[in-house]
Amino acid sequence: MPRRYTAPVVLPCDPACSVIRDGAVDVGDDGRITYVGPAAAEFDGPVTALSGILLPGLVNAHAHTPMTLLRGMGGDLPLLRWLREIIWPAEAKLRAEDVRNGMLLGSLEMLSRGVTTSAEMYFHAEEMADAVLTTGARAVLGGPIMDLPGLDWRQMIAAAERWIDADGLRFGPGERIELSFAAHSAYMLPPEALRLTAEAAAARGALVQIHVAEAANEDEQQRAEFGSVPKLLEQAGMLDGRVLAAHAIHLSDEDIALFAAHGVGVAHCPGSNGKLASGIARLTDLRAASVPVGLGTDGPASNDDLDLWEEIRLAAMFARLSTKDSAALSGPAALLLATRGGAEALGRNDIGALEAGRWADFVHIEPDDFTLALGLDVPDEQLLANLVWATGSRQVRDVWVAGDQVLAEGESTRADSAKVRAAAKESAARIRG
Amino acid sequence: MPRRYTAPVVLPCDPACSVIRDGAVDVGDDGRITYVGPAAAEFDGPVTALSGILLPGLVNAHAHTPMTLLRGMGGDLPLLRWLREIIWPAEAKLRAEDVRNGMLLGSLEMLSRGVTTSAEMYFHAEEMADAVLTTGARAVLGGPIMDLPGLDWRQMIAAAERWIDADGLRFGPGERIELSFAAHSAYMLPPEALRLTAEAAAARGALVQIHVAEAANEDEQQRAEFGSVPKLLEQAGMLDGRVLAAHAIHLSDEDIALFAAHGVGVAHCPGSNGKLASGIARLTDLRAASVPVGLGTDGPASNDDLDLWEEIRLAAMFARLSTKDSAALSGPAALLLATRGGAEALGRNDIGALEAGRWADFVHIEPDDFTLALGLDVPDEQLLANLVWATGSRQVRDVWVAGDQVLAEGESTRADSAKVRAAAKESAARIRG
Repeated sequence: MPRRYTAPVVLPCDPACSVIRDGAVDVGDDGRITYVGPAAAEFDGPVTALSGILLPGLVNAHAHTPMTLLRGMGGDLPLLRWLREIIWPAEAKLRAEDVRNGMLLGSLEMLSRGVTTSAEMYFHAEEMADAVLTTGARAVLGGPIMDLPGLDWRQMIAAAERWIDADGLRFGPGERIELSFAAHSAYMLPPEALRLTAEAAAARGALVQIHVAEAANEDEQQRAEFGSVPKLLEQAGMLDGRVLAAHAIHLSDEDIALFAAHGVGVAHCPGSNGKLASGIARLTDLRAASVPVGLGTDGPASNDDLDLWEEIRLAAMFARLSTKDSAALSGPAALLLATRGGAEALGRNDIGALEAGRWADFVHIEPDDFTLALGLDVPDEQLLANLVWATGSRQVRDVWVAGDQVLAEGESTRADSAKVRAAAKESAARIRG
Repeated sequence: MPRRYTAPVVLPCDPACSVIRDGAVDVGDDGRITYVGPAAAEFDGPVTALSGILLPGLVNAHAHTPMTLLRGMGGDLPLLRWLREIIWPAEAKLRAEDVRNGMLLGSLEMLSRGVTTSAEMYFHAEEMADAVLTTGARAVLGGPIMDLPGLDWRQMIAAAERWIDADGLRFGPGERIELSFAAHSAYMLPPEALRLTAEAAAARGALVQIHVAEAANEDEQQRAEFGSVPKLLEQAGMLDGRVLAAHAIHLSDEDIALFAAHGVGVAHCPGSNGKLASGIARLTDLRAASVPVGLGTDGPASNDDLDLWEEIRLAAMFARLSTKDSAALSGPAALLLATRGGAEALGRNDIGALEAGRWADFVHIEPDDFTLALGLDVPDEQLLANLVWATGSRQVRDVWVAGDQVLAEGESTRADSAKVRAAAKESAARIRG
């Protein structure tokens, strides 16, 4: 039976970042939204009256969530040394069950911070899918395609193809899982692998996730030969399909124009980029060129907390500092990056906003906190500022995905958090061991 | 009777940022620490066994906490417009009782984030003192001395003198209140006012708090005449006494050398500076010159959340980005800025660390969270990374000041949070109205 949720404040995350007072979100039996607007509108069915702020579930546009198991390991090293000396040796010990344990932990953590969808690139992607279906979250998943000793990228492409051909591009209740191709990066793959990945993805309408221009020194060889990584990707045919470029820090004006012309999505990861001193992406220029931009936490080994609200604030601060303009990115504009912007970057129009037809993925922020003490009835601009700059994830209490309540009063309705933590702890100890 | 607190992890925040496993903190009847070390040491008296991490209460080295009442107002404007168009008109409506309400709210909020001491500059300082004594926190207070129409800076200096001469430089249970002189800034005061403030403070051994070089354009006149604000302060005799320079962004090498030579403390406020696009202070250079540096939230109207843990992460990220060096400031070094560094910047050696002789101001971080799921028994480096980069203020559960428990299970033991919020809401509505 269709159900209505009412709240003093509903933030649909439409392009204007409107604030609906005494609003309602109606959800159909299929888990999709049928109405968003004033609660005064007629409705025939059960109504759940909530006390705070309703907004769409946040979209984490770039993550390696099973790295919860490696959280805090060697995090003060620069990117390439950190990967080679700490992360890759630890990852070599990961078994399928570890990935599942790490993903379960991170998925519950994200839901508890109001993040309902994440774009994931990690090994044992089938275990990630299983974990996501267990917690009830939503994800776009890809096993990494990379050229490392003992790993054959041709087999990795073939594995992704087989899975999509068997299960479909999207599956699970509420189409919670979308499969994708996750080409690690131009510096970890030969151009031929990029070309074949692009072909395989295009044939299936699938998204390609790829790291682009993260560290200044990661792609010297590719830049010498092709001018830039975006140009290499263009030549490999990858920009003709759906592409999500993670980080995308060291871009030229030409690179940005290339992304804009091809509708390449960008996952901006300010927290990870700041912590690893990778640099500040040219967010203002990307937005001015109408490149779809979302926000990503990156893996919890490099960021470390899967709290996308912190990325919202960092995106605004970094944009302001790098342009010396406090109006470079407003709080509401930054919130939109984490919601509808993330959806756009992923090439999805069915998540990231409260709008009839989209999936009913939404979050309830409970107002009983110092940061919202001035009340929900302050002017719209002030309310949005309080939410974005002060409250953040602190008051996330209830979360729905495809109309199912997956977090209630801060607790998962699907999984036993204590057991999930214990299993992750055991896996992490073995990997460190 | 002396009391012992034990915990699996004690972080004394000594210069090495040591981790004591199965540690103890002993507190004497006078509210000062008598012992910090392994719990195996003998102790005769009541023992409280805690389950998580004990560390010193954080020191917020620069705040205007009653501005909780203005939180979220006009926060996307640049500094000087924001002050002139939004903040000063609103502040003109503030009554003494409003300041008390705003300070009560912010003081409870800071305690709940693990901040036990704040350096405050705001109107109606006696109301701030009353609020701090009510919540049981600790503060260094100064009413601002500034040159505005209708405000006479000579009277403001005289008022501060009278108060110190009447009540003493420190007073209250556990010496919770320290009085200071809060000269607003060189651009809001004539040199003569700076000179007389410095004299009045030096005669009493009092700290002078002052905003220095926050916005690039705020002090053009002073720079034209004196070369820089630090040089002006030197000429006014202010650097000969105890000085805390807030922000201190736009400094030359000479300015930094001047601060180092005079032991001037700096309150680095990365969150406020990022949000207002004021710039990034030269933290690495200040530290290299051995300038004492602490971290400040600044007022909650410009930052906005009084969560000093966010400043810890921002300080590290900003230092790394501005130097392109991920080793520029480690997580543990950033934590020390927020604890013993803040104490040093305030010229205090009785707070900011767990050490025999200092006040027993400490915080208990409860470990039952996703971010600490790998356990407290991970290696020291990893534990500190998890705490600083992921857990932050999220798990602050219990707080002691001068040995008194002022927060228990997340709730104030001294004030009714709901009543405090309601009073602040009422004050804020009147000011907006």
